Amino acid sequence: MRRRLFFALLALLASGQTHPPQPPSPGQIADAAPASDWREIAPDDLVVMTLAGGQRIVIQLAPRFAPAHVGNVRALARAHWWDGLAIYRVQDNYVVQWGDPPPDPDSEGTKKLPAGVPARLAAEYDLPAAGLPFRPLGAGDAYAETGHVEGWPAARKDGKAWLVHCYAMVGAGRGYAPDTGSGAELYAVIGHAPRHLDRNIALVGRVVEGIEHMSALPRGTGALSFYTDPRQFTGIATVRLASELPAGDRPRFEYLATESATFGAYVKARQNREPPFFEKPAGGADVCNVGVPVRRVKG
Amino acid sequence: MRRRLFFALLALLASGQTHPPQPPSPGQIADAAPASDWREIAPDDLVVMTLAGGQRIVIQLAPRFAPAHVGNVRALARAHWWDGLAIYRVQDNYVVQWGDPPPDPDSEGTKKLPAGVPARLAAEYDLPAAGLPFRPLGAGDAYAETGHVEGWPAARKDGKAWLVHCYAMVGAGRGYAPDTGSGAELYAVIGHAPRHLDRNIALVGRVVEGIEHMSALPRGTGALSFYTDPRQFTGIATVRLASELPAGDRPRFEYLATESATFGAYVKARQNREPPFFEKPAGGADVCNVGVPVRRVKG
Repeated sequence: MRRRLFFALLALLASGQTHPPQPPSPGQIADAAPASDWREIAPDDLVVMTLAGGQRIVIQLAPRFAPAHVGNVRALARAHWWDGLAIYRVQDNYVVQWGDPPPDPDSEGTKKLPAGVPARLAAEYDLPAAGLPFRPLGAGDAYAETGHVEGWPAARKDGKAWLVHCYAMVGAGRGYAPDTGSGAELYAVIGHAPRHLDRNIALVGRVVEGIEHMSALPRGTGALSFYTDPRQFTGIATVRLASELPAGDRPRFEYLATESATFGAYVKARQNREPPFFEKPAGGADVCNVGVPVRRVKG
Repeated sequence: MRRRLFFALLALLASGQTHPPQPPSPGQIADAAPASDWREIAPDDLVVMTLAGGQRIVIQLAPRFAPAHVGNVRALARAHWWDGLAIYRVQDNYVVQWGDPPPDPDSEGTKKLPAGVPARLAAEYDLPAAGLPFRPLGAGDAYAETGHVEGWPAARKDGKAWLVHCYAMVGAGRGYAPDTGSGAELYAVIGHAPRHLDRNIALVGRVVEGIEHMSALPRGTGALSFYTDPRQFTGIATVRLASELPAGDRPRFEYLATESATFGAYVKARQNREPPFFEKPAGGADVCNVGVPVRRVKG
């Protein structure tokens, strides 16, 4: 067993299985939370992307932080704009990018946006911090004060608050000018959090299921890790809002309320892993290592 | 161009290409460093793992931080112990694990270690901080004071210093007891830095080339993200020390000396990305976002 126990214990912590004499693991703490500590995600805030191979990726939108970009994403999904487009760039330890593939590395996709969908949106990089239900994490950080807002990893400084680029967060590509993004071209983080992008680009949500269908794709070998041959693309079959799907096919997700006492206990358990494996509890946790519990609604 | 510029600028920063009116990018600063600022990695500190498909992964060892574990890794490479073994576990946003695959999820591999290679080594999790050439990063951190030691991302607290679990760092699996690792089973980080593992497991090095041949592998679907069928394994053809390879086939790498003035300028550029793309310089950088420049020796 020797070689496997290290990994086994971490799995127990993650899965919530018991392993005497373990204290409650983070997973167990979340699982034991009363139903009132969980918040269901609205069907209009869930995007279901089905790849050509049938794999499904579910994205939760963040309308409070990027209302105009989220509005465009919803409109593009309702217009079925992404259907038949592709994932055409995968850069290791950075991002997966999808949308309308550029015909060559020096130009952009040619597919027009639907009528009524603005091709340029004003920057939505941060919000006034005042009045936001910001729960501080109480940990040091190289960039700002970190914490959580309504289930999202966030940071604040100088009176502003913003979402942070943790693993699986989804953002909207833009050009040099801050008002050049539309939400038509999206990227997901598949590496160490590129926090220098915080407050420089609009984050519109996060992948809550199926990120492995993007993170395990072959890395691009062209400039900027674009694929060099369209045959390398991963096709997108459909992108739909959960609210558009038939009830029987509609995924339902919920997240642990980050303002709850349960979440506080969960964070403490994440900050200080326990024996028998851990010799030295970390005493803290990076905001992107806390991991807000998100799960399918049971039944 | 709009949709691609965001990505293009980041590529320019990384590649060191010029893009007026850009100030020198981190890559340009490193490229402009005098030869005396670069340190060649000793051939006994480079491990070349060749997969069954021919892909090569190059790992730099860290003998100063884990001398006994690195000693075992060198002995196992010289004994060709890993030849014919496999990568048998890939967990998304966490680790890739390789060595002797367990025949079933509740046992371990059966391949004996060579004579003279200890199956259990004492913990090598940290060192006395006194006397180490520790260059502080000067950025906040949730765990400790971060910085660099001889090209390695490191942290220190309470008189001790240790390597940190950044993306691509390589560690040695162990059991519950701290003296149960050998270096025969290794893992590489393929996600956000799992810093809670710092000081709880011996880090033996880092992947300096070819991490994408591990990070893009299909994720395991079994317990702990192990593959459920040996046909899913990625075979390991050979693992050799660079010093064992014929001169013509021996890779040579060098890293930017982290105690150099050049590295200081590189860090400042990483901490504050510039216009035209970046509206808000981060003003800091997580130790795992600094990225110590490592490159093949030219010529």
